[in-house]
Amino acid sequence: MRIARIAHAGGTAHAVLDGDTAEVIADPFGAGGAAHGAAGRAPVRLGPRLPLAEVRLLAPVQPRTVVGMAHNTGPADRELPPQAFLKPARSVIGPDEPVYLPDGIGRVDAEAELAVVLAASPAGHTPDTVLRTVFGWTVANDLTARDLQRNDPLWTSAKGHPGFTPLGPWIETGLPAPDDTEVALALDGVPLRPASTRELARGVAEILCCLGGFLPLGPGDVILTGAPGEYGPVRPGGRADATVAGIGTLTTPVHAGGPR
Amino acid sequence: MRIARIAHAGGTAHAVLDGDTAEVIADPFGAGGAAHGAAGRAPVRLGPRLPLAEVRLLAPVQPRTVVGMAHNTGPADRELPPQAFLKPARSVIGPDEPVYLPDGIGRVDAEAELAVVLAASPAGHTPDTVLRTVFGWTVANDLTARDLQRNDPLWTSAKGHPGFTPLGPWIETGLPAPDDTEVALALDGVPLRPASTRELARGVAEILCCLGGFLPLGPGDVILTGAPGEYGPVRPGGRADATVAGIGTLTTPVHAGGPR
Repeated sequence: MRIARIAHAGGTAHAVLDGDTAEVIADPFGAGGAAHGAAGRAPVRLGPRLPLAEVRLLAPVQPRTVVGMAHNTGPADRELPPQAFLKPARSVIGPDEPVYLPDGIGRVDAEAELAVVLAASPAGHTPDTVLRTVFGWTVANDLTARDLQRNDPLWTSAKGHPGFTPLGPWIETGLPAPDDTEVALALDGVPLRPASTRELARGVAEILCCLGGFLPLGPGDVILTGAPGEYGPVRPGGRADATVAGIGTLTTPVHAGGPR
Repeated sequence: MRIARIAHAGGTAHAVLDGDTAEVIADPFGAGGAAHGAAGRAPVRLGPRLPLAEVRLLAPVQPRTVVGMAHNTGPADRELPPQAFLKPARSVIGPDEPVYLPDGIGRVDAEAELAVVLAASPAGHTPDTVLRTVFGWTVANDLTARDLQRNDPLWTSAKGHPGFTPLGPWIETGLPAPDDTEVALALDGVPLRPASTRELARGVAEILCCLGGFLPLGPGDVILTGAPGEYGPVRPGGRADATVAGIGTLTTPVHAGGPR
């Protein structure tokens, strides 16, 4: 099932997408929502049912926490201890929403990733049970200012600029094989080498158990699992298309300077 | 003026504290609230006026972003480029709320700091105007797992455990001299060496301009300015009292293990 957040004539809402319609539902991450404390609960349908052509898709969730896995891009990274980084919640933008690159920021890489949207904290779960804390799956573009990273050992500036965390286009609640799903990136329409999440150093259950062991997490929080495939620099006037098989494609136009 | 968040018989709310009463106000960080877009607007008083004895103080704000300044503890740190770190929003706890130290975490230091609560993003402001984006001031204890920091180059685990960001006991909207205010820490009732925020490498206006230059920030976000004075390890069964002159004292009981 596809769960989105939409802007429509009456405001903003969460919605179930079905064919070319969007049906408004209760906030799945609010108290009493579908995600509250347990995955798999049915969405609370409120209506109305709107034509997709009359709505705009927003980032499908407004997380309180966005956490990414560092150096999780290949089997060799298993030699390193797991390492997580935080991105600012306010750096999240939605599908087709532009990111603005300030003057002098240098190289900014797009990284296409499978993102986990939590229904509940994974704390206290085992690898066998931790996937029950997953509400669904979306696509992330973990934009990273590569040149800034050299003088920013904590990555706060390199990962944390406004718009540096595009998410969407929606949450898919049923992904058949999260640990063997193709992730692909295209820059200005040119595809880079894709890869399967099978090639990540650590799979989803291990990531969730690791993070649940120390980080306070809850409904609606988002985990970026790492980029298994090729990444590359974006440029003003271009765009990045991040695709995860079974979910969809997240498009991010890239502009120079501009509004904050 | 003191602004708090309180739990009372009817639920939770923001409130103005006056003598031994708490008067319920509209959420100053919500749309139309006192902080919305500009500091200095009067709180919207809703009533009722409750006896302080009948309420419990919560963390005075629920930030979307908590950002701290690294190596800002003395003049020598001016030689280093400014460096910020993020703490998870869900690591915030309130006054008198205990922090639980998991087994094997090693040394955990308390760091008493002046914290800025934002009314608006500091982006686009100059040092002359940026203090207008401040809603008020509170006390923070930037709990840090010192032993974990050695194997955690991004500090995510070292700074991000549940309960590692006590804030409170309230927000003081008028602090006469934020860049020359005494900050003190006591551990288990024994005072450590206090210091003035004058001794920080960078003052509040410079910190705000720096962060506003790259980080998406907004109403209710919290900035930890750095610990100018002595810090030290907490221990289960003990407590940390962080005091900022002109604001108040934030007490954090320390327990072993326990609930997550």
